[in-house]
Amino acid sequence: MKKGIAASRGYAIGKVVLKEKNEEVIVEKSIQNVQEEKNRLQDAVNASREQLEKIREKAEKEMGTDKAAVFSSHIMLLDDPEFIGSIESKIDTNKINAEKALKDVVDMYMDIFAAMEDEYMKERAADIKDVGDRITNNLLGKGAEGMNISFNNAVIVAHDLTPSDTASLDKSKVVAFLTDIGGRTSHSAIMARTLEIPAIVGLGDITNCVKNGDTVIVDGIEGIVIVNPSSAQIEEYKVKMEQFEKEKQELKKLVEVKTKTKSGKRIEVVGNIGKSEDIHKVLENGGEGVGLFRTEFLYMDRDSMPTEEEQFESYKYVAEKLEGKPLVIRTLDIGGDKKLPYLEMPEEMNPFLGYRAIRLCLDRKDIFKVQLRALLRASAFGNIKIMFPMISSVNEFLEAKKLLEECKEELRKEGKAFNDNIEIGIMVEIPATAVIADEFAKYVDFFSIGTNDLIQYTLAADRMNEKVSYIYDPMHPAVLKLIKMTIDAAHKAGKWCGMCGEMAGDERAIPTLVEYGLDEFSMSASSILKAKQIIMNM
Amino acid sequence: MKKGIAASRGYAIGKVVLKEKNEEVIVEKSIQNVQEEKNRLQDAVNASREQLEKIREKAEKEMGTDKAAVFSSHIMLLDDPEFIGSIESKIDTNKINAEKALKDVVDMYMDIFAAMEDEYMKERAADIKDVGDRITNNLLGKGAEGMNISFNNAVIVAHDLTPSDTASLDKSKVVAFLTDIGGRTSHSAIMARTLEIPAIVGLGDITNCVKNGDTVIVDGIEGIVIVNPSSAQIEEYKVKMEQFEKEKQELKKLVEVKTKTKSGKRIEVVGNIGKSEDIHKVLENGGEGVGLFRTEFLYMDRDSMPTEEEQFESYKYVAEKLEGKPLVIRTLDIGGDKKLPYLEMPEEMNPFLGYRAIRLCLDRKDIFKVQLRALLRASAFGNIKIMFPMISSVNEFLEAKKLLEECKEELRKEGKAFNDNIEIGIMVEIPATAVIADEFAKYVDFFSIGTNDLIQYTLAADRMNEKVSYIYDPMHPAVLKLIKMTIDAAHKAGKWCGMCGEMAGDERAIPTLVEYGLDEFSMSASSILKAKQIIMNM
Repeated sequence: MKKGIAASRGYAIGKVVLKEKNEEVIVEKSIQNVQEEKNRLQDAVNASREQLEKIREKAEKEMGTDKAAVFSSHIMLLDDPEFIGSIESKIDTNKINAEKALKDVVDMYMDIFAAMEDEYMKERAADIKDVGDRITNNLLGKGAEGMNISFNNAVIVAHDLTPSDTASLDKSKVVAFLTDIGGRTSHSAIMARTLEIPAIVGLGDITNCVKNGDTVIVDGIEGIVIVNPSSAQIEEYKVKMEQFEKEKQELKKLVEVKTKTKSGKRIEVVGNIGKSEDIHKVLENGGEGVGLFRTEFLYMDRDSMPTEEEQFESYKYVAEKLEGKPLVIRTLDIGGDKKLPYLEMPEEMNPFLGYRAIRLCLDRKDIFKVQLRALLRASAFGNIKIMFPMISSVNEFLEAKKLLEECKEELRKEGKAFNDNIEIGIMVEIPATAVIADEFAKYVDFFSIGTNDLIQYTLAADRMNEKVSYIYDPMHPAVLKLIKMTIDAAHKAGKWCGMCGEMAGDERAIPTLVEYGLDEFSMSASSILKAKQIIMNM
Repeated sequence: MKKGIAASRGYAIGKVVLKEKNEEVIVEKSIQNVQEEKNRLQDAVNASREQLEKIREKAEKEMGTDKAAVFSSHIMLLDDPEFIGSIESKIDTNKINAEKALKDVVDMYMDIFAAMEDEYMKERAADIKDVGDRITNNLLGKGAEGMNISFNNAVIVAHDLTPSDTASLDKSKVVAFLTDIGGRTSHSAIMARTLEIPAIVGLGDITNCVKNGDTVIVDGIEGIVIVNPSSAQIEEYKVKMEQFEKEKQELKKLVEVKTKTKSGKRIEVVGNIGKSEDIHKVLENGGEGVGLFRTEFLYMDRDSMPTEEEQFESYKYVAEKLEGKPLVIRTLDIGGDKKLPYLEMPEEMNPFLGYRAIRLCLDRKDIFKVQLRALLRASAFGNIKIMFPMISSVNEFLEAKKLLEECKEELRKEGKAFNDNIEIGIMVEIPATAVIADEFAKYVDFFSIGTNDLIQYTLAADRMNEKVSYIYDPMHPAVLKLIKMTIDAAHKAGKWCGMCGEMAGDERAIPTLVEYGLDEFSMSASSILKAKQIIMNM
């Protein structure tokens, strides 16, 4: 028996498929014809691009656009003249084979990123490694082999799983993931939750403890792996699996139900989405609307700003699919840890305390107004509400609202339809905004509490920073007090208050939030049914 | 007449001394004897070190240790094997003269830093430029010439003033600074305030508008320069200068006065200090104690941790000088933008939301306990109070207090004296702490509100980031509400509440803070007398 970090709930009994360690020994060779070697590299890059485009398509279908976005970054890396140029110049200067030149460049990048201790940079390092391995395989003529899975209940065991690994897996045959390294937010963990299969990560040396074909029990609730279990253990877990499955079926019954507490209070349980297609998953999981459409995904992984028309089509698509159910769309929240390749941003010492979201939009009205016009036009096709992020003063809200009125006036003159009574709200994610929520409540139509940032700022702790993430606590009494103040202020002014941070889907927090009177809970699609169940039993 | 940024209050009428633009044209020369060239470099580095040591000594005497610390950084740069090594290796590889090798390395650093837009990095760039110019001058045999000032009412006019410039000036002859570039926090501005002479910065091209010997009027209140004024203008300003001087004398009368409002409420107006010697300036300016002793200066600009004995001596020195007046000592607040060369710290994406202050101290109890023991031992010699920074939860405070109790127990066993009833308080600088100040008030002996950080976190705006510094507003209603909540919570529990951020010395804020009931105002020495006057007129 081995214990690791339970990263995705559920049970599985299956047979081990070990991911081979892809550790090619790359040997340096002198080459004569530099141009020929560069052509070889270019061919391998082109082959990699084709593979990645297919993988991205597959990933979008199977796991949603959020999860597929990483492959767009990989493709962009292949198109990055600095990356490819460095490899070519190594071939030129050192007259060596493309494999070795590639390895040197990847190693250099890895060294640079390894010296940085932050999570974001580590992810970037993993991406470069993944792309480098793919080009190497193509150079060596190994093509895009994935793991061969010949049976139906495969437990994938790996040191770690890359996005390429998980995307190319035949998911119909996989029942669980086990990895040596990683935490709850590692790629393997997130993928398992998306696929709704159990996963245990951070097991240390599980790859050395099993061989292909071994039977294993995966307990994704307790984080336990049992290798070659006794028949008594198998029987015990079959019972647990049955119960787990039964509960899942119970939850499925709640898909069409409108959520109410036992005392009859109506509460909306809605979904967070990144791209328009994500709406399907929300509806399948019983979402009663969308409480947060993060529009920055429309701006990412492309070479230029999305046009008004492109945005309009996206917003309209979701609004129509929702058939009158509420759709809260947040205006562009770029900056902080999210950058756009085509928009120059200042280097900042503390990007989370910097130039982002509404601050950027009020500074770049040219960008902002395109989005506001698209939102207004889409509002003719459904129940759209507009939400401004990172608002810290009433003046900022009024300034944003004034721009919206300007856009309305323009559309009126152009004879274009929009909902003149569209609701306008704000994210409450900066401590100041919660502290004077009573003042804001006079002006806005609704609040949505963004707990991820609110907690971070209230406790002055970056939750991505592992040295201080222990301080990040949704149940800290000051956080709860600010949430309560915000809800009370909204109600006193006759407005509604929702929440769209991770806390809204946190089973430990939901009962408290219902007691505080929160009107709307917005969360990832996979948490909706459980949340409905908890609320309906209150 | 030219208008710039008023950076230091006061008036002056004087004659221009232009700082020559030190733009040596460095020509590349091939050299034969590499070792000889490296010796030349080493000689210039040694000469620079000697000059800097003298300057540091002079600066400490004239402007205090805070202001002199920059020269320690300069000396450390001279001892930095990477910096000097890069220059030597350029001499080696390129067989070029030391002047050109130095210029190339400095230019490279400047390019790297210029690409970063943050203020801290820009300062580092200025330091490297300053040190580079000094070594160049020594290589060229120009020595450490400063500006030659031959008359008594010199107005220094420069593109910008470096720390070396201001340190080497004959301050008895200088009556004002005028610079082309810079803002209120630039080096020239800070120096002028320290020297209590008027300064106007950000004037654009003042260096092109005046010549040596021109008469100028400097109006450091309005930020105006009048070049070659009429005699009527001179008369007008002589009157203003007289009034200004009179007010200064009025303030001097308040040095020995105990501050009370007109209604008789006693309020303590105390000083912030960095090193123990700074206490003199506080006492000269009428400080009624010290509200913030920033102990990190004891840890900076050295190669190893200060010992218990060294710290004890520092704390004891200040405590004795204060003769029973209160001395609030803050425990080590390192991390964020403050690093120690001998303590490895993680690279962080958002250092202000990271591993710093009490978070580091509770993690590194070995470091923390040395300081706590020194503080306790010094408490036998004066009215010392201990203050913990960056406290965000009651548990953190209790953990810190437990360590203090352990230290007391150790000292008891060793038979060493300390004040067993020493007061223990916290900085209120994290929003969460202000929000639940009523909870904290049950445990602590006092609060001191650290407005610089509190405002920054409450509004999620890094005040050093020029793209968002407009959001940083001490008078934001949420900030005022948190301050009021903190003061009320303290008083309800019978505790006292002070403030040690910049807001405590802000003339606009003082009346409001007195109304809120703030008991103690701690500020830089130069603001104390004015603050006393404002409070005594209320």
